[in-house]
Amino acid sequence: MPESSNNLRKTFYLDKIKSPQDIKSFDIKMLKELCEEIRSVMIQTISKTGGHLASNLGVVELTVALHKVFDTPYDQFVWDVGHQCYPHKLLTGRASKFDTLRQEGGISGFPSPKESEHDSFIVGHSSTSISAANGLAKAKSLLKKGGTVVAIIGDGALTGGLAYEGLSNAGRSKDRLIVVLNDNGMSINRNVGFVARHLATLRARPRYVRAKMKFSNMLASIPVIGTPLRNKLLHVKTEIKKLMYSRSSFFEEMGFNYIGPLDGHDLEDLIHGLQAAKKLDRPVLLHVATIKGKGCDFAEKNPDVYHGVSNFDTDTGERTPEKESFSSVFSREICELAAQDERICAITAAMQVGTGLVEFNKLYPKRCFDVGIAESHAVTFSAGLAHNEAIPVFAVYSTFLQRSYDQILNDAAIAGEHIVLAIDRAGIVGEDGETHQGLFDAAFLNTIPNTTIYSPSCFEELRINLRQAIYDVSGVAAVRYPRGGELEGLEFYHPDYKDYTLFEQDNSEILLVTYGRIFANVYKAAARLREMGIPVSILKLTRIRPIDKECIELACKYKNIFFFEEGIRWGGIGESFGLMLMENGFSGAFKLKAIENFVPVCNVKTALKNVGLDTDSIVELVQANGVTERE
Amino acid sequence: MPESSNNLRKTFYLDKIKSPQDIKSFDIKMLKELCEEIRSVMIQTISKTGGHLASNLGVVELTVALHKVFDTPYDQFVWDVGHQCYPHKLLTGRASKFDTLRQEGGISGFPSPKESEHDSFIVGHSSTSISAANGLAKAKSLLKKGGTVVAIIGDGALTGGLAYEGLSNAGRSKDRLIVVLNDNGMSINRNVGFVARHLATLRARPRYVRAKMKFSNMLASIPVIGTPLRNKLLHVKTEIKKLMYSRSSFFEEMGFNYIGPLDGHDLEDLIHGLQAAKKLDRPVLLHVATIKGKGCDFAEKNPDVYHGVSNFDTDTGERTPEKESFSSVFSREICELAAQDERICAITAAMQVGTGLVEFNKLYPKRCFDVGIAESHAVTFSAGLAHNEAIPVFAVYSTFLQRSYDQILNDAAIAGEHIVLAIDRAGIVGEDGETHQGLFDAAFLNTIPNTTIYSPSCFEELRINLRQAIYDVSGVAAVRYPRGGELEGLEFYHPDYKDYTLFEQDNSEILLVTYGRIFANVYKAAARLREMGIPVSILKLTRIRPIDKECIELACKYKNIFFFEEGIRWGGIGESFGLMLMENGFSGAFKLKAIENFVPVCNVKTALKNVGLDTDSIVELVQANGVTERE
Repeated sequence: MPESSNNLRKTFYLDKIKSPQDIKSFDIKMLKELCEEIRSVMIQTISKTGGHLASNLGVVELTVALHKVFDTPYDQFVWDVGHQCYPHKLLTGRASKFDTLRQEGGISGFPSPKESEHDSFIVGHSSTSISAANGLAKAKSLLKKGGTVVAIIGDGALTGGLAYEGLSNAGRSKDRLIVVLNDNGMSINRNVGFVARHLATLRARPRYVRAKMKFSNMLASIPVIGTPLRNKLLHVKTEIKKLMYSRSSFFEEMGFNYIGPLDGHDLEDLIHGLQAAKKLDRPVLLHVATIKGKGCDFAEKNPDVYHGVSNFDTDTGERTPEKESFSSVFSREICELAAQDERICAITAAMQVGTGLVEFNKLYPKRCFDVGIAESHAVTFSAGLAHNEAIPVFAVYSTFLQRSYDQILNDAAIAGEHIVLAIDRAGIVGEDGETHQGLFDAAFLNTIPNTTIYSPSCFEELRINLRQAIYDVSGVAAVRYPRGGELEGLEFYHPDYKDYTLFEQDNSEILLVTYGRIFANVYKAAARLREMGIPVSILKLTRIRPIDKECIELACKYKNIFFFEEGIRWGGIGESFGLMLMENGFSGAFKLKAIENFVPVCNVKTALKNVGLDTDSIVELVQANGVTERE
Repeated sequence: MPESSNNLRKTFYLDKIKSPQDIKSFDIKMLKELCEEIRSVMIQTISKTGGHLASNLGVVELTVALHKVFDTPYDQFVWDVGHQCYPHKLLTGRASKFDTLRQEGGISGFPSPKESEHDSFIVGHSSTSISAANGLAKAKSLLKKGGTVVAIIGDGALTGGLAYEGLSNAGRSKDRLIVVLNDNGMSINRNVGFVARHLATLRARPRYVRAKMKFSNMLASIPVIGTPLRNKLLHVKTEIKKLMYSRSSFFEEMGFNYIGPLDGHDLEDLIHGLQAAKKLDRPVLLHVATIKGKGCDFAEKNPDVYHGVSNFDTDTGERTPEKESFSSVFSREICELAAQDERICAITAAMQVGTGLVEFNKLYPKRCFDVGIAESHAVTFSAGLAHNEAIPVFAVYSTFLQRSYDQILNDAAIAGEHIVLAIDRAGIVGEDGETHQGLFDAAFLNTIPNTTIYSPSCFEELRINLRQAIYDVSGVAAVRYPRGGELEGLEFYHPDYKDYTLFEQDNSEILLVTYGRIFANVYKAAARLREMGIPVSILKLTRIRPIDKECIELACKYKNIFFFEEGIRWGGIGESFGLMLMENGFSGAFKLKAIENFVPVCNVKTALKNVGLDTDSIVELVQANGVTERE
């Protein structure tokens, strides 16, 4: 372990790096120093801004070695999932702005081609890197662009089916493509089937033999890039095969030359390994063993806890205690329900902590299934469970459920299998930005027949809706709730089992319709409008699909209807609601305020303001449009 | 090969079978006769009704063996993809109705729990069986139901990421689950990476050793189910391991006991193999080598051609020549464009024939990518290609594109990568039924920002729209077109590069809005309405997302607007159009006629009538609603 890595270091070497070219002249000693500076900066910054700690600490040496050996943007890196790109950002001209990490207008916590030419591909979801790299490398070959594409993927991400599809296809290409398998044992922690078993086998053999010398000798015999001596190259392949510390029939049958496992914190081994892989001129899988949280004692000990964090103390790792959240309410409630009903099962796709299933797993390990990063499987598996009378509750982030659209539709909804989707992080999620916003779940589930969606606005309502989803409906039943806690101002609200609630104001011709947490903002806006002499009523939807005919009839009595939706506009609930109004003969004015584009990095409060769903914006919109009547 | 299998046989044994229990008493000789009867009935029936020929001929012995060994519905079979379930249907009480195959109200071409208790799970899309079986078996264990679940999956389906996720999770369960790998070499034909290589290795070793005797001996030593003699069972496992003709580290690392490969047309071997697998009481993978089209000369020779067929001559295999279709027009056009632009690539997910890429692959093999049954990969791979300036055109059926929702959204749309989706089978597809209808693509793509969708109504328009999608727009560009040919009545229509066309009728207060092929029906309906003295105008949309503001303004001049959509209602284009009207101050009447539920097996013409989108229904709807004006 590096000395005092948790404390602030001077960034002597890091300051010299304006572009990755600047490290080309660094020797090993300087590079090692640089690694420690990167660790120090990351720990300091993340302790204030929040972000992904353990995963970034694990790839410091790997990233430095990559930039030492390759030349971005001529060569291209694709970081799988993307939450381990901080060292890469520090080395590619973004060190001086690094303290703006995950802030509005600042450095994104994920790779972003808009931000830098060194970020080759948009990333956020898991297991995409090999497929993307396959495409990038293929286009390079076809259009004769030159350069190597490197995908860096964790062993956890390898549990996703997309990674398997990517490996199988990339392996049979002839392109210059390297897959760096960043193996930090996460799949083993979760005991996710094949990947865990296979990598454990690979690592069990002569462990981290230091092969620097062998590599150096071998490198001397490798022809320079472009030398068309096929025979010599074949010879080199054989040499490398001999050097492999263990064999992987799996990766080889996939079509890759397998090299590894290397010690992911030994810079020299990494550099030599990457140089060898680069010269092979065909798909190579380089297996690198890393330690999540490396160089920061508390993160090394609890990599899951320090995977994604808000702020913490840099010396002790002490974190601001978690407040009550929709996730924690779900967590308790699902345990309580499961205590009384043995049919209830919980499913998670490698998100036990995030979705609040840790306690459930402790209490009912036989009914708790962590399927790895495999959202599609999770749904089809759930449909199978449901068909044989179990009650599966799949707890999942809204953004990742996008991966299950076909399975929800084809494997569950058509046959009417009763699966329950507990959709966390629905709506704006804040600092994780565009790739993680939960803007689409209501809209894409809305398209699917035999589907019921509840969207609670407060903790108590989540409890009720979860029971309804489990016991009161058939087919696909979803309960969607936001990241974090309730918005302020709902103390007065006592939810019940009704699908909608009308808050009627005397003499009001204006109706505000909404659902989910922003009901709080709409309610506050209505109060303010009333104070301004504009009486408005509110229709709060709880079940947002199907929409109750009765509430359309109620709404039709108003002249001026506004619909506020924290979700994508096209295909969303607001559009369906508006259409039902029209078809019911509504002839007043209707205005839909929903989200019309991807929402970039920004905290939730500001983001709601930016999209016009904070209290002030709601008041302004109604003021501006609510009084004028249509011809 | 069986004698005269292509000719009609008497169904002596098949007639005796009212339920699968009836074959329990059959001896091997009778079972073999039964197999030939099943082949004969299938060939005769499919030659008239159309359907899946080669795949069903390949699993006759396997299906008979399954029903000999297992007891459905106590035991459960999950047929992957589902298009090989005809022998199963013939053995489970549906032989007498088999001539209604794929007809409205008749026997579905896919497993359907609504149809029979022997069909355990809805199936239609590929690679779902292991995940579903995992869920079914897990629920059996949890709720102590007893019985074994058997998933039957082809080697082609094994190229899908979902199958990998399923294997990885099912393998680590302790449940009574058998995966029968029906290996007919399809992955090898397509050379799809890992699966092809791995299975070829397995099959290369001592081929189809007849192990009947060995199996029989072994079976004598296997304890009856439930005997708690763990040690003895372990001994049996070792015996079986010895019996394996080859080893599979892959399936074993997945957690399965591997048995195989067996000759999939040797009934005795199959029965013994299944009995052994059944007694193992844990996840087993049984590798069975079959011949697609077995027992029918022309189908054996060309399994791809006789995979899914319309009618054909039972003796010669001669088929009704294919008419010009949207697929064949796309086929020629994409070749022509690629001749002039080296950046154009074509991608298919194991659907080269269906999507019309055979010719492209012949002309430009280096730019044609069959990625296996891997729609998610296909899109992320395309996004990678696009990022490095190639122009990827992913040709895919609407229903299968559902698998790519997240990849379109996250990997392409957010960064604005210019990928082109050539969506075949958009709209109602006919006889394949619920699981294959293309009802959702417009709606789910509608939810995604940075996306442009064209929906041509005729061949000429498809040509134009394809060029527009490739050259005129950025971001995700989709062209969606139906199965088969144009509807009648569009001879007058000469498309151009306009996003919409207004066919104005003097003095009309009624406007019919539509897109896609049913423009033909709407046009005919309008003509008939005019004859009846009801003047109606037509707004035909070609680009359906984003909708042009101008055409909303044009529409607002009418009092009474009808929108006809061959697609799902919720989240569809009609809802978005209606909303835009409302927000533009439209105060007339609006009626949306779209599809509100899953559409069962039925030919396209009847299905359009059933959902109210044929000419007659359109006329009636307008007559009934068009004249009355709103208050």
